[in-house]
Amino acid sequence: MFTKRLNQLLLYATRRILKDTSGYKGALKAFLEAHNIGAGDIVVVKTDKDEYKGTVIPRYEYASQDFLTLKLPNGYNIGVEFNKIRSIKLVEEHAPPAFAPQHLTAPKKGLPKAVIISTGGTIASRVDYRTGGVRPALSASDLLSVVPELGDIAQVDADLLFSIYSENMTFSHWSKLSERIYNYIKEGYNGVVVTHGTDTMGYAAAALSFALHKTPIPILLVGSQRSSDRPSSDAASNLIAAMVTSLKAPFSGVYVSMHEWVSDERISIHVGTKVRKLHTSRRDAFKSINTSPVAVYKDGELNVLRNDLPKRGVSDDFRIFPKFEEKVSLIKFYPGFDPSIIESLYQKGYKGLVLEGTGLGHVNKLTADSLKKLIRDGFIVCMTSQCIYGRVRLTVYDTGRDLLDAGVLPLEDMLPETAFVKLSWCLGNFEREEVSKMMRSNIANEYNSRLLLEEVE
Amino acid sequence: MFTKRLNQLLLYATRRILKDTSGYKGALKAFLEAHNIGAGDIVVVKTDKDEYKGTVIPRYEYASQDFLTLKLPNGYNIGVEFNKIRSIKLVEEHAPPAFAPQHLTAPKKGLPKAVIISTGGTIASRVDYRTGGVRPALSASDLLSVVPELGDIAQVDADLLFSIYSENMTFSHWSKLSERIYNYIKEGYNGVVVTHGTDTMGYAAAALSFALHKTPIPILLVGSQRSSDRPSSDAASNLIAAMVTSLKAPFSGVYVSMHEWVSDERISIHVGTKVRKLHTSRRDAFKSINTSPVAVYKDGELNVLRNDLPKRGVSDDFRIFPKFEEKVSLIKFYPGFDPSIIESLYQKGYKGLVLEGTGLGHVNKLTADSLKKLIRDGFIVCMTSQCIYGRVRLTVYDTGRDLLDAGVLPLEDMLPETAFVKLSWCLGNFEREEVSKMMRSNIANEYNSRLLLEEVE
Repeated sequence: MFTKRLNQLLLYATRRILKDTSGYKGALKAFLEAHNIGAGDIVVVKTDKDEYKGTVIPRYEYASQDFLTLKLPNGYNIGVEFNKIRSIKLVEEHAPPAFAPQHLTAPKKGLPKAVIISTGGTIASRVDYRTGGVRPALSASDLLSVVPELGDIAQVDADLLFSIYSENMTFSHWSKLSERIYNYIKEGYNGVVVTHGTDTMGYAAAALSFALHKTPIPILLVGSQRSSDRPSSDAASNLIAAMVTSLKAPFSGVYVSMHEWVSDERISIHVGTKVRKLHTSRRDAFKSINTSPVAVYKDGELNVLRNDLPKRGVSDDFRIFPKFEEKVSLIKFYPGFDPSIIESLYQKGYKGLVLEGTGLGHVNKLTADSLKKLIRDGFIVCMTSQCIYGRVRLTVYDTGRDLLDAGVLPLEDMLPETAFVKLSWCLGNFEREEVSKMMRSNIANEYNSRLLLEEVE
Repeated sequence: MFTKRLNQLLLYATRRILKDTSGYKGALKAFLEAHNIGAGDIVVVKTDKDEYKGTVIPRYEYASQDFLTLKLPNGYNIGVEFNKIRSIKLVEEHAPPAFAPQHLTAPKKGLPKAVIISTGGTIASRVDYRTGGVRPALSASDLLSVVPELGDIAQVDADLLFSIYSENMTFSHWSKLSERIYNYIKEGYNGVVVTHGTDTMGYAAAALSFALHKTPIPILLVGSQRSSDRPSSDAASNLIAAMVTSLKAPFSGVYVSMHEWVSDERISIHVGTKVRKLHTSRRDAFKSINTSPVAVYKDGELNVLRNDLPKRGVSDDFRIFPKFEEKVSLIKFYPGFDPSIIESLYQKGYKGLVLEGTGLGHVNKLTADSLKKLIRDGFIVCMTSQCIYGRVRLTVYDTGRDLLDAGVLPLEDMLPETAFVKLSWCLGNFEREEVSKMMRSNIANEYNSRLLLEEVE
């Protein structure tokens, strides 16, 4: 059997063209390539007993290479044993949906100027929806072509700043992004929307919240939990809500615009320092933590829910503090935690750390003792809670008071992710002496001092 | 002014007795001690202009020592400037509420045997409710005296195993606790309830879930978000629900029993591997993640919500696997993450790691490359999501597929904390070769394979 296959492969070798056979290896990969078949192609496969028509799916599992996976018209996937395949026939070649950048119609007179800055992520990706794979591909101008309604509300420019997965975003990207936004606003743009991968959008929103001081307009980050070219995509509605908010909202600052719930058209506007991705896949993955959304967008209307936000308008104090210190870390405490992990960071030149303690902000005795020494040596230690919801309080138990005495900074109801970004920003832009005080000050609504309903007994 | 104070202090020095002046320092501390006044005492303080009656509160903040803090009868705290104090008078000395261990009435005939194993934590602590400080103090038999109703449903023994804050619980405690439980069940106990500090109760519940294999009865962990001797304590209702469940529930395994909501008497029973403390202070801090509670207790009735759980009854296979490997870690990925943190762990002899990736389970390129090398060297890397809710999927993006190819184990919807405990347990009890397969197998309901409502688009 194997010799027969090998002969076939040799026969077909010359016809090989570039097709996506990712995941397949060895003989099966060669077999597919020989037949000029790749992922996404619709094929008819015959075995001794059966015949299957379906879409070739990349074999993602690192396990067995003995099966060709097909997605059947009913939606189910089946594995066809390679050794039993008698023939394979290409029925329909796969072509991913194309989004040629379209030039917008001539700008309408009187419309405000706005920009969409693209950094990558699912909102700027096209899915191969036969195979389920997603690749970053769409540019900001592609997005415009997908959402032509935007042309009716503003003269929209598109700026493709990065095209990376958001897990690869880092301090220097935040610096560049904040500088870019600063320049657009200085040039007179009335709306700024940043498309961002959802994975680290919460971190980026916090970074911009601190880097951009007293912005005259609201800056909106927007992502998508569904690729822009999928029928169920949330990209368009998220994007329109973000643009309308940036252009028209009465408040300023940095916000995230995402679906409020799985099934409807309501979009929540979240404070950039109080928002977190709380689900791997739901459309409404983003939630305001320890506060509520500031506004809800529905059917073209923005319903503002809070009146204590900084006001939109000309700001004489609009400034930028775009630096971030890289030698900071975010560490989650767990039972049996070995503080030498933190000591190693200090030895590597790290300047500070945000801890996710348990409950009200606790760590074990060994770690507490180690932190005391490090703090004496100038290391900055901030405490948040791995509970996510609620408020760190180091005054309830005597172990917490020990940490306070040692100089651990209790960050109240601040999100661990926001605290990590803030520490990086403080150390990047200001003198070491100011950092402790700044960490405990409310700079960009990262603290919610109002009594929380949840805390009433 | 200072000299005058100093003279006073010297005068009073001989009268000094031991009082709790924690938090106060220097002259103010000496002043309080000189007047034989400590936290919790009710005093009358006179200044030039005013007179205040209130309870002395420890000064927890590491900031100014210029103020004496009093809790006024109306519940508010005020700071009285030290330099303005003319006189202070002790009105009523503070005595913490006492709970003398009471012997239960003679066991009632026919009642099943049960045990409450106490490990410490808030449920086994008494609060000084004038000052708000909490100390671990109550033993299991104290708890029985607080909740005498337990004597009507079982012959309850009390076992004070540990008396520590739960952030100090570690692998060896889990081993001892599981051995203790195993022995009680082998001796014929029909109910086992473990009182535990809430901070790490989720981790401990996971540890027992894996260590105790095919238990004939359900083992209930129970904590309290309010000290047992506070009027608003949830300790009694949580404890009764736990005991009734352990004695009567038709299922076996390890569960956590905590309030379902802030205000009512409904107690949720959560799967021990799928439960997480999700709020620092609310009564209903514990939530089932990626699944629902298995039962709800109300007014003496246990309403079972699932029928797919292991059945209660005599188990011939009841076994214990009580070991835990200490050289495992739980690391949260963040933007700019430096993989040398993980490489250091490997060099320190760590055997494996659970990562909290972003979104569907991602890390940056640098970290992915580092993980590939470590895995080749035998290091075990498991992927969970820092989103908490949802399911890790490494097949959606090509970066995820790279991780899969490298041998990263995707742990689906398993909680990061449960994954950490499971990895420690797998490495502690089984051969290295079996660990990868075991991590991907459903051993104690740590995976929920049923389609989640949230995942439907």
